[in-house]
Amino acid sequence: MTRIARRMADIQPFHVMEILKRAHQLSAAGRDIIHLEVGEPDFPTPQPMVDAARRFLEGGHVHYTPALGLTDLREAISRFYHDRFGTDIAPERIIVTPGASGGLMLALGVLTDPGDEWLLPDPGYPSNRHLVRSFEGRPVALPVDATTRFQPTPAHLAQAWTPRTRGLMVASPANPTGTLLELDEIEALQQAVSARGGVLIVDEIYQGLCYGVEARTALSRLDDVFVVNSFSKYFGMTGWRLGWMVVPEAYVRDIEKLAQHFFISPSTPAQHAALAAFEPATLEILETRRHAFAERRNALLPALREIGFRFATEPQGAFYLYADVSDLADSSETLAQRLIEEAGVATTPGLDFGNNAPEKHLRIAYTTDEGRLVEAAERIARVLKHL
Amino acid sequence: MTRIARRMADIQPFHVMEILKRAHQLSAAGRDIIHLEVGEPDFPTPQPMVDAARRFLEGGHVHYTPALGLTDLREAISRFYHDRFGTDIAPERIIVTPGASGGLMLALGVLTDPGDEWLLPDPGYPSNRHLVRSFEGRPVALPVDATTRFQPTPAHLAQAWTPRTRGLMVASPANPTGTLLELDEIEALQQAVSARGGVLIVDEIYQGLCYGVEARTALSRLDDVFVVNSFSKYFGMTGWRLGWMVVPEAYVRDIEKLAQHFFISPSTPAQHAALAAFEPATLEILETRRHAFAERRNALLPALREIGFRFATEPQGAFYLYADVSDLADSSETLAQRLIEEAGVATTPGLDFGNNAPEKHLRIAYTTDEGRLVEAAERIARVLKHL
Ligand SMILES: Cc1ncc(COP(=O)(O)O)c(C=O)c1O
Ligand SMILES: Cc1ncc(COP(=O)(O)O)c(C=O)c1O
Repeated sequence: MTRIARRMADIQPFHVMEILKRAHQLSAAGRDIIHLEVGEPDFPTPQPMVDAARRFLEGGHVHYTPALGLTDLREAISRFYHDRFGTDIAPERIIVTPGASGGLMLALGVLTDPGDEWLLPDPGYPSNRHLVRSFEGRPVALPVDATTRFQPTPAHLAQAWTPRTRGLMVASPANPTGTLLELDEIEALQQAVSARGGVLIVDEIYQGLCYGVEARTALSRLDDVFVVNSFSKYFGMTGWRLGWMVVPEAYVRDIEKLAQHFFISPSTPAQHAALAAFEPATLEILETRRHAFAERRNALLPALREIGFRFATEPQGAFYLYADVSDLADSSETLAQRLIEEAGVATTPGLDFGNNAPEKHLRIAYTTDEGRLVEAAERIARVLKHL
Repeated sequence: MTRIARRMADIQPFHVMEILKRAHQLSAAGRDIIHLEVGEPDFPTPQPMVDAARRFLEGGHVHYTPALGLTDLREAISRFYHDRFGTDIAPERIIVTPGASGGLMLALGVLTDPGDEWLLPDPGYPSNRHLVRSFEGRPVALPVDATTRFQPTPAHLAQAWTPRTRGLMVASPANPTGTLLELDEIEALQQAVSARGGVLIVDEIYQGLCYGVEARTALSRLDDVFVVNSFSKYFGMTGWRLGWMVVPEAYVRDIEKLAQHFFISPSTPAQHAALAAFEPATLEILETRRHAFAERRNALLPALREIGFRFATEPQGAFYLYADVSDLADSSETLAQRLIEEAGVATTPGLDFGNNAPEKHLRIAYTTDEGRLVEAAERIARVLKHL
């Protein structure tokens, strides 16, 4: 009787959930587990944003908003682009969404016909290929490696493009590798894509989380691009489910239609919290956190290198390290299992991020304080000496 | 350069937004507008739920939850089915979603292959056909009328079923008609559907909002059914974006995968508010409101009948009246325009709900207090006397 749609055979779960489940079992049994697998900041939502939401909630009047979001919030985001990047974006092109996830769904829903191919760097954020598949598109992996900082180039694109290709998705900073694209590189990709009649989607969800380099946006160079962003990571709002997207004007009306039916509107309390996201008091908190992330990275990276984790490229953003562990184990999955069982350290095996040498890679998130990170490295070192 | 996916040509906006826009213009110009077009309760979220959310937010620790929702909330919903309906539902079969909208997306995403047909009563909730189309399914309208209380029967089904039919979607109480299905009727529909190898989706979002009859759930009779529900309407939580769905066990794992990629997780503050939804203090507030809705209905229905609005069937649920206005105007759209311009009363023309005689029908929502409803009827009467 059960008949499940064919697409589901191609849609994988987040494999890291298995590690997480095991971590919870071990914790419940009294083991101390250090979590290096978690893709969200450990910091709470900044107090000015929490206060804004709590004030809004006082009256209890929590109704639907327009499908594209509160006008005030769209204008605040527009001002943010102006103040931070010197870029003028009309509020009408800004779509408030339920997380970057919601933005990615709307973009792909409006752009993808059945059979359309999307080029996705591999390794990359796992949901992208499953969202493409959900709308009956075909995700096509672009295998990328340390030689191009795990980012695709026009050469990758030229090789993989077919008459059915609809476009390219990139992320900067990227998950799982933490690497950035230079604006020149994004512009070159956009030229290569649009010369072929395609569309470029740039996921800037980790914007603001970069270390030793300036935050940037594709929008300071390009109009004809879909830019996905979110309040989840830099702004510390994961559980609120709020993001935004900037799209070419010609797509706004269709995206609005789809947003009405998919979501009715984005979370109202989250939108009121986000209205305080760009206040100086909030931005000060966020910059302090960014410095803390930078210090964590600077502590963890050499400690892991010493153990034998290899990093061919220095990650400059997000809160991830993507380690080549092929000197330490035949399979990153077996290694991750060993690390959780023997060292009490949870990590994410490459498997979640694609099919490009996943067995050689582990993703390590520095979403835990520096003391714990150092302890994790020590524990891992102890276990691996018994190899 | 702009190339929009073919599905978008079939996806309509909520047409009522045009009326809403005009209402805002008139308000801004100083006109007093009575809103009978709004599909959400005017009441605030009950205080115990607001308090629960505000307490949770205090610490600012608003992180992702499991994709299927907080275990505590799934268990609370399970207890609610037990306490209110005497029905035992395993918490594992309960999926917490971003509104009923999210539940409908997950259900259709997991069930619909390209070209699959879904039978949808017409008039019906507009998003259903667009969500079916979004996953490349084919929405097939079942024209229903007052002779079957605007609900489909096994006879409708037998006539429309083809080898490509995947199933039937119904709502009880329904939008826009406010009519209910008896449990015997739901059971007969389920038998007719499953005898043909299909699936029945029952939308119970207006459960709890019924007048003169007991609230009911398909789950007290059936296991092999998808039941969609929401905290939006009865629980007064529209803007929070939270709902739930009960599914046959065999679908849970696939729905979890899709939920991870579509939504990551439902709103965390909303889930904490919802944990207080089933407390006696909350339920008492909700029952008081239900009585207020009943009184509004009892005041408005005869007043509109007197003006010439026809109701062949007495609506027993939701907060809508679906009026036959063919004695008053050739087109419900023209009438709605006249009512907003001349009477300052906003209503929803049938157009939003399908292609089955929409020009004859207006939807009137009693989501405004009784005094304003009576005034609206008086204003409409004055305008229509000048016909
Ligand atoms: C690259 C990337 N894009 C999008 C998302 C979705 O995040 P959200 O929906 O919380 O904004 C994530 C989450 O981890 C991500 O890593
Ligand atoms: C019949 C019906 N189903 C589903 C929905 C979606 O509501 P929500 O996503 O707020 O739960 C609505 C909203 O009006 C509705 O009327």
